[in-house]
Amino acid sequence: MKLTLSEIADHVDGRAIGNTSCLISGVSEIQDSKKETITFLGNLAYKKYLLKTKAKAVFVTDIKLLEGRNGIIVKNPQLAMAKTLNLYFPSVNKGSTIHPSAVINNKSKLSKNIGIGANAIIMSGTKVGEGSFIGENTVIGQNVVIGSNCYFNPNVTIYDNSIIGNNVIIHSGTVIGSDGFGYVTENNIHYKIPQTGNVIIEDDVEIGSNCSIDKATIGSTIIGKASKLDNLGQIAHNVKIGKGCLMAAQFGISGSTIIGDSCIFAGRVGVAGHLEIGPNSIFAAKSGVTKSLSGGKVYAGYPAREIREHNKRQAIFNKIGKLYNNLNKFEDFLLNK
Amino acid sequence: MKLTLSEIADHVDGRAIGNTSCLISGVSEIQDSKKETITFLGNLAYKKYLLKTKAKAVFVTDIKLLEGRNGIIVKNPQLAMAKTLNLYFPSVNKGSTIHPSAVINNKSKLSKNIGIGANAIIMSGTKVGEGSFIGENTVIGQNVVIGSNCYFNPNVTIYDNSIIGNNVIIHSGTVIGSDGFGYVTENNIHYKIPQTGNVIIEDDVEIGSNCSIDKATIGSTIIGKASKLDNLGQIAHNVKIGKGCLMAAQFGISGSTIIGDSCIFAGRVGVAGHLEIGPNSIFAAKSGVTKSLSGGKVYAGYPAREIREHNKRQAIFNKIGKLYNNLNKFEDFLLNK
Amino acid sequence: MKLTLSEIADHVDGRAIGNTSCLISGVSEIQDSKKETITFLGNLAYKKYLLKTKAKAVFVTDIKLLEGRNGIIVKNPQLAMAKTLNLYFPSVNKGSTIHPSAVINNKSKLSKNIGIGANAIIMSGTKVGEGSFIGENTVIGQNVVIGSNCYFNPNVTIYDNSIIGNNVIIHSGTVIGSDGFGYVTENNIHYKIPQTGNVIIEDDVEIGSNCSIDKATIGSTIIGKASKLDNLGQIAHNVKIGKGCLMAAQFGISGSTIIGDSCIFAGRVGVAGHLEIGPNSIFAAKSGVTKSLSGGKVYAGYPAREIREHNKRQAIFNKIGKLYNNLNKFEDFLLNK
Repeated sequence: MKLTLSEIADHVDGRAIGNTSCLISGVSEIQDSKKETITFLGNLAYKKYLLKTKAKAVFVTDIKLLEGRNGIIVKNPQLAMAKTLNLYFPSVNKGSTIHPSAVINNKSKLSKNIGIGANAIIMSGTKVGEGSFIGENTVIGQNVVIGSNCYFNPNVTIYDNSIIGNNVIIHSGTVIGSDGFGYVTENNIHYKIPQTGNVIIEDDVEIGSNCSIDKATIGSTIIGKASKLDNLGQIAHNVKIGKGCLMAAQFGISGSTIIGDSCIFAGRVGVAGHLEIGPNSIFAAKSGVTKSLSGGKVYAGYPAREIREHNKRQAIFNKIGKLYNNLNKFEDFLLNK
Repeated sequence: MKLTLSEIADHVDGRAIGNTSCLISGVSEIQDSKKETITFLGNLAYKKYLLKTKAKAVFVTDIKLLEGRNGIIVKNPQLAMAKTLNLYFPSVNKGSTIHPSAVINNKSKLSKNIGIGANAIIMSGTKVGEGSFIGENTVIGQNVVIGSNCYFNPNVTIYDNSIIGNNVIIHSGTVIGSDGFGYVTENNIHYKIPQTGNVIIEDDVEIGSNCSIDKATIGSTIIGKASKLDNLGQIAHNVKIGKGCLMAAQFGISGSTIIGDSCIFAGRVGVAGHLEIGPNSIFAAKSGVTKSLSGGKVYAGYPAREIREHNKRQAIFNKIGKLYNNLNKFEDFLLNK
Repeated sequence: MKLTLSEIADHVDGRAIGNTSCLISGVSEIQDSKKETITFLGNLAYKKYLLKTKAKAVFVTDIKLLEGRNGIIVKNPQLAMAKTLNLYFPSVNKGSTIHPSAVINNKSKLSKNIGIGANAIIMSGTKVGEGSFIGENTVIGQNVVIGSNCYFNPNVTIYDNSIIGNNVIIHSGTVIGSDGFGYVTENNIHYKIPQTGNVIIEDDVEIGSNCSIDKATIGSTIIGKASKLDNLGQIAHNVKIGKGCLMAAQFGISGSTIIGDSCIFAGRVGVAGHLEIGPNSIFAAKSGVTKSLSGGKVYAGYPAREIREHNKRQAIFNKIGKLYNNLNKFEDFLLNK
């Protein structure tokens, strides 16, 4: 497919500059830009790549950056890039057909325009909303509620009684509603605490592959509206994740912890149980959170503290060798006095 | 379902106090207690919630804590809660029917009262004990032995030759018996060491979702009786986990390591390979164990050491800024002398 | 099966010593050697076990180590052991039959001698090369290319457009090609960046169980020839792993990072995004890599640095208590002067 620069500009609400009728056949990244494509300068640190770009046009925020090249002026080049990718790669419609090999309990309720992949399983009492797609070999337990326009990839597992909103995307291997890790130990025997709750996933959530999201012991584990979770993450029983959070891969949130709205987790962040983390918290990679935090700040380290304080400590730790040597010099000095 | 306070007291072997014929319709947690329920005071730190509880009755250890409320006196309120949850939520019997879509090799041996979910696969030479349930889309390889009363959730994978005891629960996405990570490198080529052993899971074990438990290179990887493993954990080839261990999520145990009985791992603990960890060891979250340990103690940090020593070092590290400043002051003092 | 010592010696290109016609029925490890087996002394640290071995013969590098025992002299005892295991445990041929319950789109192309397990799914446009085996319940998306002699275990998921070379082994639960974690945030809304690329896995790669390997946003995520990945690892979008790398369990490589050839990762190593790691880098367990590295060295710690420097810092940190006490002594000394 080829589009003119002005067609793309119209789609992203931008202003085309230069040869506005030149033909663009795709999007490429500025470090590895391809001929006939449009690329984008999202981060000024990548400006050096602009000089030698092979791309036919560039999304920029300011006409000066173009230096005579073709381009489109937009407020957010990365967002323009995302919208343009959608033009070239419209989301694949896996179809609204139900594969004959799918095993659908006759006590389930399917809305219109639903796609169900081969060998998928829908158990009794479960509802699937309009326009949703259930991938191949995905297993949906009993009495689950799935909203409209959801997209579940193959090999997903949803335990009984889960409630899932609209426009939710779940990737392969992810398990929603496995039992929380709860035992009472008496006389060296671990008695299992029945895990009687469920998981609620609100609208517009996306969950990556191979995540484990445990049901609540009593009540609900909740993933708030429009939160986006990456791969291989653990959400323990009774956790509540706020709205609009971003959590990079290999996160681990322990039981009953509450994460406020709009928090951002870099990779492999761990949070202990029974904590309350305020909204708009940002955690550096590998942070280990051991105390409740008021939020609105950037945190790092283990135990996690405000990143400024963390960096100060690290800077001093970096001088620990000099510290040690000085101390030895003083010792000599004092002893020899 | 509604039960009287005395009916519940009988079930948990406790003594009902107050209006013993009041009707209770469920269990709630004390921080979020609901009307018509019984709640429990397991940890005195939660006593503050008792004052404003809406629950109709409370499990406590001492009548004084009730201050006039209805309640049940028990030795272990959390255990009483677990038992009461079992009353209100009897474990779902997924039935002892074999779904016609399941693919069962005619050289497998199924005992009585077995349930097998849709599209589950049982390969040749495999035995399934009485009362066990094999979830939907779960794949059981060849020559596997599964004891009685096991419960495997959907999308579990059991490799060939695994041996699984009685009353074992396995959650979705978990893989039992994948190949150990073993190669011999010569002239820059990694030759695969054949992984010829198996995995043995003893009675009463529970394994969470999305765990990987590798088979032994030679011999067996073993998960000891009544050990409970959380989600997203890694057990490498030839590891032996003792009896009655508790391992929270995202653990990683490297090859050939032996963990003693009754060890407790908080979240994301890692243990290096070829170590021996004594019984009754307790590891704080994120511990990284690099040496064999005699056990019976609490350990923390990376490298993991006794927690008292770890805390002492951390406390001094917390003063590192002051240390550094003092040293600079001394330097000035000495230079200006 | 029993083989004579000379038959084994011939197979591994070694020299049999002692009773060369004695019968050997298997391989055992030196710490736990069994009668009638051959064991191996790969690491001289295990020499103490040689004295009390019950094995009938031993692979060693030097005849002196045998002290009169039967044995085979080889250059690499561990490799000889691996080759001998292959004799006793020839790789199971899961057969080249296609199970009738498999769902194979008629627009896919299957070569000769392919095995496809029960309930496996092959979607349209997908090609499977000669001699490959697709495990039970494994789902292969649309327009996937799979080379010859691949072995995919049960419950693997391969997303659309993935390209997989020859002789690739993938273990259960692993997901190839899930969406990269990419959003553009504007006015507090996270817009999904379409993930339009794919994953390329080159020849001779092995990937453990429950890994997540995300497709590229644009272009390809690449796992280089003959690299071996352990379980529960995360490879983010646009990552490129070089050839011949070894990555132990629970690794996490963030977006767009490039790992050079022949790198070795111990367990749970994390690498931040957009970095370039030179070839022949070795990372100690739990390393957290925050900067590009030239390679060819051993690194440790978080932030990862050369291990010599890391160890020096740790050694000084080990004296931090003494440091602190000395400083207090000096303070006293100076004040009391």
